[in-house]
Amino acid sequence: MRTQILLAAGAIGLLPIAPSPAPLRGFNAQSSQIERDWEAKFDAIPDPARLRSMMQLLSARPHHVGSPYDKQNAEWILQQYKSFGWDAHIESFDVLFPTPKERLVEMVAPTRFKAALQEPTVAVDPTSGQHDEQLPTYNAYSADGDVTGPLVFVNYGIPSDYDELERRGISVKGAIVIAKYGGSWRGIKPKVAAEHGAVGCLIYSDPGDDGYAGGAVFPNGPMRPPQGVQRGSVADMPTYPGDPLTPGVGATKDAKRLAVKDAPTLTKIPVLPISYGDAQPLLQALGGPAVPRDWRGGLPITYRFGAGPARVHLVVKSDWSLKPIYDVIAKIPGSTEADQWIIRGNHHDGWVNGAADPISGQVAELEEARALGELYKQGWRPKRTIIYTAWDGEEPGLLGSTEWSETHADELTQHAVAYINSDGNGRGYLGVSGSHSLEHLVNEVERDVQDPESHVSTLKRNEDRALVRGDSSAMRGDLRIGALGSGSDYTPFIQHLGIASLNMGFGGEDESGIYHSIYDDFYWYTHFSDTSFVYGRALSQAVGTTVMRLADADVLPFVFTNLASTTRRYIGELERLRDQRASQISAERRAVQAGAYAATSDPRDPTQPPKLETVPPHFDFAPLLDAQDSLEHAAQRFESAYRAWSTHAPVVQAGAPAGDETSLKTVNEELAHAERTLLAPEGLANRPWYKHLLYAPGFYTGYGVKTMPGIREAIEQGKWGEVNHEIDRVAKALEREAGVLAQAAAGLR
Amino acid sequence: MRTQILLAAGAIGLLPIAPSPAPLRGFNAQSSQIERDWEAKFDAIPDPARLRSMMQLLSARPHHVGSPYDKQNAEWILQQYKSFGWDAHIESFDVLFPTPKERLVEMVAPTRFKAALQEPTVAVDPTSGQHDEQLPTYNAYSADGDVTGPLVFVNYGIPSDYDELERRGISVKGAIVIAKYGGSWRGIKPKVAAEHGAVGCLIYSDPGDDGYAGGAVFPNGPMRPPQGVQRGSVADMPTYPGDPLTPGVGATKDAKRLAVKDAPTLTKIPVLPISYGDAQPLLQALGGPAVPRDWRGGLPITYRFGAGPARVHLVVKSDWSLKPIYDVIAKIPGSTEADQWIIRGNHHDGWVNGAADPISGQVAELEEARALGELYKQGWRPKRTIIYTAWDGEEPGLLGSTEWSETHADELTQHAVAYINSDGNGRGYLGVSGSHSLEHLVNEVERDVQDPESHVSTLKRNEDRALVRGDSSAMRGDLRIGALGSGSDYTPFIQHLGIASLNMGFGGEDESGIYHSIYDDFYWYTHFSDTSFVYGRALSQAVGTTVMRLADADVLPFVFTNLASTTRRYIGELERLRDQRASQISAERRAVQAGAYAATSDPRDPTQPPKLETVPPHFDFAPLLDAQDSLEHAAQRFESAYRAWSTHAPVVQAGAPAGDETSLKTVNEELAHAERTLLAPEGLANRPWYKHLLYAPGFYTGYGVKTMPGIREAIEQGKWGEVNHEIDRVAKALEREAGVLAQAAAGLR
Repeated sequence: MRTQILLAAGAIGLLPIAPSPAPLRGFNAQSSQIERDWEAKFDAIPDPARLRSMMQLLSARPHHVGSPYDKQNAEWILQQYKSFGWDAHIESFDVLFPTPKERLVEMVAPTRFKAALQEPTVAVDPTSGQHDEQLPTYNAYSADGDVTGPLVFVNYGIPSDYDELERRGISVKGAIVIAKYGGSWRGIKPKVAAEHGAVGCLIYSDPGDDGYAGGAVFPNGPMRPPQGVQRGSVADMPTYPGDPLTPGVGATKDAKRLAVKDAPTLTKIPVLPISYGDAQPLLQALGGPAVPRDWRGGLPITYRFGAGPARVHLVVKSDWSLKPIYDVIAKIPGSTEADQWIIRGNHHDGWVNGAADPISGQVAELEEARALGELYKQGWRPKRTIIYTAWDGEEPGLLGSTEWSETHADELTQHAVAYINSDGNGRGYLGVSGSHSLEHLVNEVERDVQDPESHVSTLKRNEDRALVRGDSSAMRGDLRIGALGSGSDYTPFIQHLGIASLNMGFGGEDESGIYHSIYDDFYWYTHFSDTSFVYGRALSQAVGTTVMRLADADVLPFVFTNLASTTRRYIGELERLRDQRASQISAERRAVQAGAYAATSDPRDPTQPPKLETVPPHFDFAPLLDAQDSLEHAAQRFESAYRAWSTHAPVVQAGAPAGDETSLKTVNEELAHAERTLLAPEGLANRPWYKHLLYAPGFYTGYGVKTMPGIREAIEQGKWGEVNHEIDRVAKALEREAGVLAQAAAGLR
Repeated sequence: MRTQILLAAGAIGLLPIAPSPAPLRGFNAQSSQIERDWEAKFDAIPDPARLRSMMQLLSARPHHVGSPYDKQNAEWILQQYKSFGWDAHIESFDVLFPTPKERLVEMVAPTRFKAALQEPTVAVDPTSGQHDEQLPTYNAYSADGDVTGPLVFVNYGIPSDYDELERRGISVKGAIVIAKYGGSWRGIKPKVAAEHGAVGCLIYSDPGDDGYAGGAVFPNGPMRPPQGVQRGSVADMPTYPGDPLTPGVGATKDAKRLAVKDAPTLTKIPVLPISYGDAQPLLQALGGPAVPRDWRGGLPITYRFGAGPARVHLVVKSDWSLKPIYDVIAKIPGSTEADQWIIRGNHHDGWVNGAADPISGQVAELEEARALGELYKQGWRPKRTIIYTAWDGEEPGLLGSTEWSETHADELTQHAVAYINSDGNGRGYLGVSGSHSLEHLVNEVERDVQDPESHVSTLKRNEDRALVRGDSSAMRGDLRIGALGSGSDYTPFIQHLGIASLNMGFGGEDESGIYHSIYDDFYWYTHFSDTSFVYGRALSQAVGTTVMRLADADVLPFVFTNLASTTRRYIGELERLRDQRASQISAERRAVQAGAYAATSDPRDPTQPPKLETVPPHFDFAPLLDAQDSLEHAAQRFESAYRAWSTHAPVVQAGAPAGDETSLKTVNEELAHAERTLLAPEGLANRPWYKHLLYAPGFYTGYGVKTMPGIREAIEQGKWGEVNHEIDRVAKALEREAGVLAQAAAGLR
């Protein structure tokens, strides 16, 4: 069906995209054809009508952790897998998940105002009125507290914002800060606020970011209405995700638990999220100088720093009991290489009704599972074991995936080949981030999955976007994929266990302002997002194809020249980062020595010089550059060996491995474990749970990735003395990776 | 006094700025000391209290062209000059200056709304209630019209905005456009709108630009209140400024005049300016897709393109009679070189009370005049003739300066050495733009004028700002000055007559939103701008010092190596511009050929490919590069000759020229005329009034300068066939300039 459509597209004047005559990566000519035949069958199965009806069902009631419908959804999903013919079960954990008992935000000076903290029912939206079952608007893992203080506006509340405040002589000590959502993982905001002495934190959704500025507000459009609130976790995820009480181990019944007061990932100060309707009176009451241009939001007011005269009283009290979570785990057994696991997941818990997040991704996964089940019934037998998961407790902090990964860490380390994640779906472009050894596979999959709007391949549409943006990387062999930070369930797999991972989803064409609110529901999704569910089908096709190729390949389809080209870029970035930091700090020192900050401080709006840092020395990048050379060389050797294999691989029977069976088995073992060589068992400097030396969420970004994080954050944070050591650690990892590749190359010969 | 303060600054720990022991540029050791002594006396005279009381007087009533108070101010200024001992008179012209008879903006669909078009009285502000004398809110030189059409939002209404509209498939044919103020000279907006078929144009002040976003609104702060309106001319100034009926000649009583209907600089469609209070209901009623992020303003609405459903009815009718303008012209005769004129001006007409614009500059000029008069009484005799002017009719279109320059074109061509302009004053940094042969003089003057807030020199404060911004140009010998576009009275001098010019004024520390409104008055200025008038005094000191050095120098203080270094930069910019255009157009063509625009057009918000241009060929920059080499060489030769002169110049009596008298006279004649060599008698391609080959206002920017405008605009506008010819014209100009410098260098030996 896909092939027909592509040929038709060629016939009507678009550039023809003929199906590649070359074998798929990891397959020889014969096995490639067999694979393509199964994939064609697979692609025809996912059904937009089923995606729609499953979304309606799964988002019919609020289904957050601990709610009746959360459990009910897990059980329904389990039954689905069983009905598809999978071997499925529910695995349960007991996790710390605070829910609110008391919430108050009131301005006590210069005038009185009490925040509503309530999202109103919208008449046309049938699920918006389920107030009895909805979680109130709050931030999970906020400390309990009852505090009063002057209010200070801190922009996004990230470290550079506090540098600006300090230069203005504005302190947040003893104050309650109000920060816009955005610019970081939300848990960064109270963390940095507390580091600077604030006693409380409000986070609001500015209409310039996801309110009326981008379009009509719900229910007239997709954007956030005045009383819409973004719930969300404020745990210190960049330290570790998962249950705060059981770092590094599964939160099983009898796990050893920290006391709540000792859990390091809870906030130090109380935090509440508010709407822009509630925020406007508070912001409007702030005095002090007007903020810089890039701090301004979309409210019709002068944004000012404070502190005061607005004073705010903030109360947060939670029920700190443990709650159960329910992960659904389902398997199709591998035939010849059952001890190699391909894992795929999407969470099922939502903050409220969660239609876009996570159900739009969850239903795509279910349709993949149904299709794979169908294929299995028709005789398809994947070489490797396929494990499909529906995680619970992702919203509070990747609980379901983290606790399961920690519980099964040894098996996963031994058996996992790759983890493929999604976390919802929209309309537009197939966005993929992940391990760069999978970049080529992603390109091959995108080439073979059609975009439902433009009827060109999803690869071509991504290339076209790069072309339209004048981005020359569109001219490269493979389109680049991004690196993974955090914010979804891939984190324990890639960053804790070193399992090659991908995150996939469509998006980029629709604005939205219902994230983590009661309005992220079936009504919203079917009016303003992938309303015909054709992108849901495309996501099923894209992820399903990726899973099948990983599960069926004769040689696992990792391509390490892509990885090496990426690490080469990172090294260049880090060298430039050092030079930029050096010239920036030198310039600041020169300006201070010249008295330039004093002379340019406006007496009506005085500013202080920046804190002076020492100029970084030159670092010893040599070991890393040597390791990079080794990696490139080994990756090339592996490619040569692979080309030789693919040209000369003997034609064998379907279902049996091609090539020398024993040797191939060893090679595949090595390939499956290659990502593990990039781990440091001791972990990153300030957060040992994170062990991957190439990818981590930034300690002060949370969502945003820091690549080669040990080196990069040491340079960013001015820890010059640590840089050479961090360079050595990454160099050793690349050398280890090169060693594995050299071995695998030898094995393929 | 200045010297003492600088030494004191050194003593308290700032870098000491000792007075330069080196002679001033253009003077030898002895004449330099004499000059410095007179300058010290000059600097002590300007008095903030007088600046304040003169501002109060001159801004006491509305004083636009044709008003009683405009004439009264001119006569008062005349009397001041006479009382200062100057030879002064008023020169009058009769100019076309339409004033409104009928103004209407009403929305007729989907709901009815009538715009107020009226700025309200503010109780605390005593002059805001002078409604009988205030010009209504309007745009001078708008065509008369009575039109109704659908409304379309066009962002700033500049050509690139219409490219975006075209890509969205939105036409303005038959529509009324609404544009934000900013991004260009306001006259560009109706010009471009009419070029695209619009029938009417509204221009409004967005609160994101100069309203509440930047601070409290008047009278609580300096920003534009909801009903505040920016008046202003919409004549096509980039075609020619001055009286629309008398291009190229003075608008004297008996001048030959065009019929109003034939005047090319009037708008083709009716235009009115409105407040954001009046704009909000119109913008809120627009349908169509939401605009791109960088089009959004500060109103609490979703900005949309239209067209419609809002329909607007716009009526503009004016009284098109001639009005008189009154230029005040005052002289101090030169002693030994009376036929060389140093001219200085600032206009005196305002749109309403005009305290900041223009009175803050006008009073600084008056204090210079008083101080120079004092010096004259004490025995100071400038070598050259000094002409101080107070222009009328600047606001409608540089009328007073243009008509005077055109009337006296022959004398000015023969006698003028330089023109120094100001157009108001604020608080902060001394901003100077102008002829780059004067760049070094500006640096020397800034070194010797103290900043009243920081007590460092205005030069150091500018260098400090560059240091704080990490701008490496702070490390160059001289700080760069900008080039002149248009928007004030220097335009006829530099761009029509080729007289080396400067524009000077302080600013950069205060936001403001009263430009061209009734709130630009004494109350506003004395609450929110240079409230103690110390920057007014500093402007008097800076401009007065510049005038004195030009008038007293033995060798005119032009330094052409600064000019040559600037033209070298411009050539580099133009070469890169060609390459950028080539790669941008190539990229667009590639994307079109690949079908990339079609594939990435969002079906819910479709876009068209951009209009395809041809890729520019390579241009022949060789003649220009050769000319540049000649210019650099000649400028260096002149510097060597000057150094030899300044080392060996004989010590002579004060008042007499130093060096060989006859030879120096010739050299100074050559230097005074050097800027004239940069003119093309035939003018720029599409606007013969503009004759300067290095500096012109952009045809589609109006205020913003285009340097080497013939070449640059040909490349920007895709007129590939004209570029080589324009390169030749500039090359010849630089060769002419080099020839003059070589001659001057020979004369100095």
